[in-house]
Formats: sequence, structure tokens, C-alpha cells
Amino acid sequence: MTGTAERGPPDFDSIVDAARLLHGVAAVTPLLRSDALDARLGASVWIKAECLQRTGSFKFRGAWTNVSRLPEKRRNRGVVAYSSGNHAQAVAAAARLHDIPATIAMPLDAPAIKRARTESWGAAVRPFDRNVEDRIGIATALAEELGCPIVPPYDHPDTIAGQGTVGLEIASQCRALGIVPDAVVVPCGGGGLIAGVSTALKTAMPGVPIHPCEPAAGDDTKRSLEAGRRIALAGPIRSVCDSLLADTPGELTFEINRRTLAPGIAVADADALYAMRIAFDDLKLVLEPGGAAGLAALVSGEMPCRGRTIVAVASGGNVDADLFSRALNGPGTL
Amino acid sequence: MTGTAERGPPDFDSIVDAARLLHGVAAVTPLLRSDALDARLGASVWIKAECLQRTGSFKFRGAWTNVSRLPEKRRNRGVVAYSSGNHAQAVAAAARLHDIPATIAMPLDAPAIKRARTESWGAAVRPFDRNVEDRIGIATALAEELGCPIVPPYDHPDTIAGQGTVGLEIASQCRALGIVPDAVVVPCGGGGLIAGVSTALKTAMPGVPIHPCEPAAGDDTKRSLEAGRRIALAGPIRSVCDSLLADTPGELTFEINRRTLAPGIAVADADALYAMRIAFDDLKLVLEPGGAAGLAALVSGEMPCRGRTIVAVASGGNVDADLFSRALNGPGTL
Repeated sequence: MTGTAERGPPDFDSIVDAARLLHGVAAVTPLLRSDALDARLGASVWIKAECLQRTGSFKFRGAWTNVSRLPEKRRNRGVVAYSSGNHAQAVAAAARLHDIPATIAMPLDAPAIKRARTESWGAAVRPFDRNVEDRIGIATALAEELGCPIVPPYDHPDTIAGQGTVGLEIASQCRALGIVPDAVVVPCGGGGLIAGVSTALKTAMPGVPIHPCEPAAGDDTKRSLEAGRRIALAGPIRSVCDSLLADTPGELTFEINRRTLAPGIAVADADALYAMRIAFDDLKLVLEPGGAAGLAALVSGEMPCRGRTIVAVASGGNVDADLFSRALNGPGTL
Repeated sequence: MTGTAERGPPDFDSIVDAARLLHGVAAVTPLLRSDALDARLGASVWIKAECLQRTGSFKFRGAWTNVSRLPEKRRNRGVVAYSSGNHAQAVAAAARLHDIPATIAMPLDAPAIKRARTESWGAAVRPFDRNVEDRIGIATALAEELGCPIVPPYDHPDTIAGQGTVGLEIASQCRALGIVPDAVVVPCGGGGLIAGVSTALKTAMPGVPIHPCEPAAGDDTKRSLEAGRRIALAGPIRSVCDSLLADTPGELTFEINRRTLAPGIAVADADALYAMRIAFDDLKLVLEPGGAAGLAALVSGEMPCRGRTIVAVASGGNVDADLFSRALNGPGTL
């Protein structure tokens, strides 16, 4: 019912078309560097700051693309989504900007800022316990009841095409700066962002290895890449990286990612928090734990980077003040 | 001896030349917006994110311009500066990148991150007690002893020209976005940033009022603008805005600012901290208290903005984790 499987992976042109849809609506986020970070790592690191995207994460790109491509007749009663928070805000924003209602199933333990922001866009939030209830089942029931399509968080060609615009921007920004990265690291939950980014870069900046970065407790994409097939972890996954808690790769995303990605990297929760502290000190950016997973792969040493040029996607910055303070009060970085 | 007074204010061409010197060395910082911030204020607010500048504040622009314009013979033994921290890092970076030594007089109570970062650029730091010692006297003695020129933090045409490139970028970014702001608000210490910005905008975006924002305890520019002459406050100034503690406007900066500026705005320390919290929640930016003074003028209501389009310069993000946590633990904003 979500129109996923029948269409197959988006191609490069679909991502270019998404960029056109997003022009003037989404931000072109900056590619940032820091002398302090480079000195710390002995590397040349470029941060694609998607925390500065509208709604505070890359998710707006996919949600906007998906909603915009729904035939008006299908979307005029509104849209439904399920999300731990970043996709929720993104769909809420995309719906509001299209002047249609949104109903979002969100886990009870979603960060307060994510729920508050979703509601502030005018969306109706339907909370659920992610330890006992099935989010897709809830969303499907809501969609049927309301007569609305679901905007899938990652496993959909239009969602993936929207996220892929991050890759287009990385390629053109690297070109403008005269950089050819040795690798790109991307936070990975269900795999939509990295599926889009890798599809874009395969054409726009070919030959650069692209690594998914996941919390160690939820390394389903890493394991699936190793096995050559989708591996489902025994859930529920527990990690501070609330935006990366997928227990299995998406069908469509994995169909893409198995062909496009370099090996996965697992990061400890402590390293995600440490990367948040480093982003605070060196980059003056607020990152959420999942958004810092790419940087965490570098600062933890899990992804060797000395002497190399790396692009790290910082995928989101929606984090509660309490957790951010916890990251700041961890080991100092000066 | 610093070559200040004899040359007079920099003109527009000097700022354009500074932009040429800074090209490929400094960042072109983004002009950011946030739906949440706009909804909160009922305004259209654009943040010029100088916290994302090299060394974490706008100061790098002026320091680089100043050092670059020193004749090689004058600078080859190095440079001297005095600064509470942002200019210190900026001069240390500019000197290191020119491969010359830097010696910086810094107050003992400067934030730890500012001192650590200044030293990490290889500069020698000479700490002093700003309550009893005179920073200019110390710097002058150091300069004589070492045979090096001083790089003044604000009261120098080349420093001002460098800071003015912030204004050039604001004008071109507004043009690209199709925005004509109703006002620009700029944090103000000695007045170098706003002198440069207002000189640039007078030509590049004429007719837009430009307001200096100062801590209430150090509102020397506000009072001086009202009096039409430089007013010296009884020091030392105490405010959480460590980067804005000037007790009197610069000679050259005030010569400019008295002709270019709209009335000054004084912000309470609590509002600067609250603005830091809002930058965290709405913009995903790390601001230091002084860097948040422009935003504080808006969120406090001191600068009415409802229904208006405002550009706020966020001038720096060098803040210690302890103080940032204090800002986060203040009144929530959700």
C-alpha cells in the first residue's frame, strides 16, 4: 500500500528531480571544516551539516520529495507516518507546507524536542510503546482509518531520492573546493539516507567508498553487508542513538546498499556522545547522538582516517538539553 | 605605533580587497533560518552564523586581513595582540598560517577553551589580571621588547575592513534569497565588527538600520551614540558576555559608528543565556553569550521584531561546556 516494492530503486535522474523539488524549500547545508578537528585526527575532515537542515535533520528532504510526488488526489486527505522523531517532524512540516493534515505514530520514549516540534507543525501524534507495539501495524491501521497514504521513513524510492540530494550537494561542494574525498561516512538506521547518497555519488563522484555508521547495538546493515543478505537483529535495540534503532535494513534500501556500500562501522554509545562533545568544541554544531555516528566512527578510531580526506555526514541535531549536557560532561576534549 | 589614527576609516573598496585576501582562507558562513525561531518571534529572522567561521568567531577575518597587510619586513619577527579570547585565537591562527610567531596578552579569567585554542595555534600566551593590569600597556611593552607590531582587536582600519566582509556576505546572501531586511542586529564590544559591517552595508544594502547589541553592564556604544561622543564606563565591566566587555568605544570605530548606526540595544545576561538555549533548540548552533547578543535583543523583546525581517549576526561560539550547560539548564524553550 505504500508503493515501495513495485517501483524499484530511484535512479540518478530521480535524485536530480528531487533537488529541483527541494530548491528554495530545503536548505543547501554547508560543508564545514575545523582546524581543531583536523589537528585532533591528523586528517582533513569535512562535515556535511544536515543538523542545519529544515526541521533539524536530513529527513525533510525525503519527506518533502515523497509528499510532493504524491498525486494531489491521494494526499488531499492528509498523510500518515511512523517515526522516532526526525521523520515525524519532517512529514509534519512537509504536510503543513502542502496545507494537508498529518498523523504520526511516535514511540513513547522519543526525545521531548522531537515530539514537541512535530506537534508544533500541527501534526496529530499517536504515541505507542515501541517495545510492545508494531509501528508499521499502527501506521497501516491509521492510514486505512483516515484514508491517507503512508510516507515511509526510508523504504520508498521517493524518500530515498530526496535523501540522495545530500549526495548531490556533497559532490558539487567537493568539486567547488577542489576536494576528492578518500571516503564518505554516513549515519545509518533503515538505510535511506545512505542509499540515496550512494546512488547520487556513484554517478556524481564515482569510486569513493561510502561507509554506513551504526550504533554497535543496532549494526544490522553492517552484518547484512557482511552476509550479503538482510539480517534481522533480535530487537528491541537499545542505544542512545534514538534515530538509528532499525533492527533490519529496508528491503529497497538494502537492494541499493548491498551494491553501493563499503563495509559498515559500528560505534559505541560512548563514542557517539564523545563525538557530540567534539562537534560542540570544534565545529560549534549541535548534533544528536545518531547524527554524530559518522564523526564517532572517526574519533573512536573505528574508521582509520589519519592522512586521509573524509566527508562525514552529520545527519541531525534534535537532542534534548539533558542528554546534550550529559555529552558535555563526559570526557573533555581540549 | 599601531598605525591606527593616521589612516582613518576603511572605505568600501578596502573591504572588497579584504574579501579577496580572505577568499579560500576564511569560510563564507551560511545565513540560516529556522521555522521554530520564526514562529516563536512572529518574524522572519536570518542568522549570519559566524560561530562557524574559522577559529569559531568573526575575528579571524580582521586578524587575517590585518596581518596580511603588514609589510613582510614589519611582521617577520611576529605579532603581538591583547584579547579576551576570540581575537587571541584569530591572531594566533593568522600568524601560524603566515608562519610567524604570535604573543598574546590574555586576561586570567578568559574561558578555558579560548586560551587552550590560542595555545594550540602555537601562540605564546601572557596572562594578566584585567582588574588591575592595563592590557594595552602590557601589549605595548611586549611589542617593544619583541620588536613586533600589535594587531589591534578593533580600532584599526585593516581589522575593521576584515570584519566588514561579514557585511558583504550578508548583502550578497540577502540578494540571492530575495530578502530586504528591515534591520540588522550585531553584537558590539569595541565596535569593530559593526563598524565594518555598517561600512559595507551602507554601500551594498543601503538604508537598512544597523543596531549594536551590548550587555547591559557594558553599554558604552549605546550611551555614546545617545551622547554623540565616546562615553567611558566606570570599569571593570562584569557580564557573562566575555567577548563584549569594552568600557569605551574605539576611537576609529566610533568615528564610523556614530555616522552609520541606529540606536543601541542593551541585553541582560539572562537574555544572552536564553538566546544560547534558543540557538541550541531552534538553530542547532553553539553560541557563546556575546555571540548571542543580537539574538538576545530579539528574544528579549528589547528589539521589536514581530512581522519584520531581521538579520542577526551570531558572532562567535567559543564557550566552555560548563557555561553552556548552565544556559541549557535555564528556562526551557519548547
